[in-house]
Amino acid sequence: MIELFYWPTIQGRGELIRLALEDSATPYVDVARGPGGISAMQAAMSAEHGKADALPFAPPFIRDGDVQLAHTALVLHYLGARIGLAPDDERGRMHAHQLQLSITDFHSEIHDTHHPLGSSLYYEDQKSEALARTKVFVRDRIPKFLGYFEREVLRGGEATLLGRHSYVDLSLFQTVEGLRYAFPRATAAIEPKLPAVMALHDRVASRPNVAAYLRSERRRPFSEQGIFRRYPELDVVP
Amino acid sequence: MIELFYWPTIQGRGELIRLALEDSATPYVDVARGPGGISAMQAAMSAEHGKADALPFAPPFIRDGDVQLAHTALVLHYLGARIGLAPDDERGRMHAHQLQLSITDFHSEIHDTHHPLGSSLYYEDQKSEALARTKVFVRDRIPKFLGYFEREVLRGGEATLLGRHSYVDLSLFQTVEGLRYAFPRATAAIEPKLPAVMALHDRVASRPNVAAYLRSERRRPFSEQGIFRRYPELDVVP
Repeated sequence: MIELFYWPTIQGRGELIRLALEDSATPYVDVARGPGGISAMQAAMSAEHGKADALPFAPPFIRDGDVQLAHTALVLHYLGARIGLAPDDERGRMHAHQLQLSITDFHSEIHDTHHPLGSSLYYEDQKSEALARTKVFVRDRIPKFLGYFEREVLRGGEATLLGRHSYVDLSLFQTVEGLRYAFPRATAAIEPKLPAVMALHDRVASRPNVAAYLRSERRRPFSEQGIFRRYPELDVVP
Repeated sequence: MIELFYWPTIQGRGELIRLALEDSATPYVDVARGPGGISAMQAAMSAEHGKADALPFAPPFIRDGDVQLAHTALVLHYLGARIGLAPDDERGRMHAHQLQLSITDFHSEIHDTHHPLGSSLYYEDQKSEALARTKVFVRDRIPKFLGYFEREVLRGGEATLLGRHSYVDLSLFQTVEGLRYAFPRATAAIEPKLPAVMALHDRVASRPNVAAYLRSERRRPFSEQGIFRRYPELDVVP
């Protein structure tokens, strides 16, 4: 049984792992959502699980028996072939992981649109800087990242990044969902230029386990916490 | 023969790969430093090398025969055991990779101290925001990241992160070097609290291949390009 440790009330980075576990119908426990779960997560952050693992720098992390792993992309790299969401040869695993690491970078930049001066400050203390960063992000970075993925989906074929369904497709789906929530005007403007990414998004949304998860209460709504946030003043036109 | 593709005049993210190749005495070509090298790198960015690989989102990337890989942490994950700088079992490889991914995040935050509004703008257009971000970074983030690595070096033992020399040690060495360059006052203030990290740094510096590399002209000096930059106005006291 996989144990997932992540903040219980938000999607955040943990959502990419939740989507992989849900799509593949992998049994898991979302530890911090259980009684005493946040305390358990915090204890796990600072206690040694096994000499063979580094301590987590931050959630999300998982435990699978005596294995403990942190960093979203590494967790997905580990789970990938084990849950049927990546090739099992080294070459195919690296292909998926490389793409996922660009998702990581993209999400980090998305987060920093609302926290350009630092995640330890409130949004309200960096609103003008957030607007400045968002304008640059919408103009330069959304087209660069999504244009990159458009090309890779075209290379993969069949509305997939790898030529077969994978955890990276699930993460790209979530990225589109989040951008539509956080930057509805900029996202609507660019979608017509990204037919392959949008076909991938729609294919993922129609997968039965994904659709069931999105309807369930396990899927927390987007909010003004986490990576993707809707602040009307940041919904700029590119 | 490993082909490394990275900007030729700076250390930047590519330096973590260069240090691994140099320390292990792995034969490599720093492609963009050769005649026509930047054109070759840019051509490689947009041309398909093999169907089995994603295109690089950005440098650095490597080629090893028909394998092409991007993202510093993934390149090091791939090279690790092959060049004697990581364990060769999956558990040990993941241990190293998880630590390296925290180095990646740290370097990303270091970069953003001078580019809080976006990497496509000049530093001169975001100087006041850079100072604001740097103050938060020096106060909150340097202690958090280096405190994490201090604990992990103590767990690893023998002035190493993994209980044996690895590519992650080389990256942590480079991080200390860069912080000393970019934020000399903040770094001097925190060094006494980090005896294990500093012992690791000094151990790496004394490795013959590292020492020879640092003295060579292959080692470009730090500058006001790349991740670690010295802007006197950002050398704040924590």
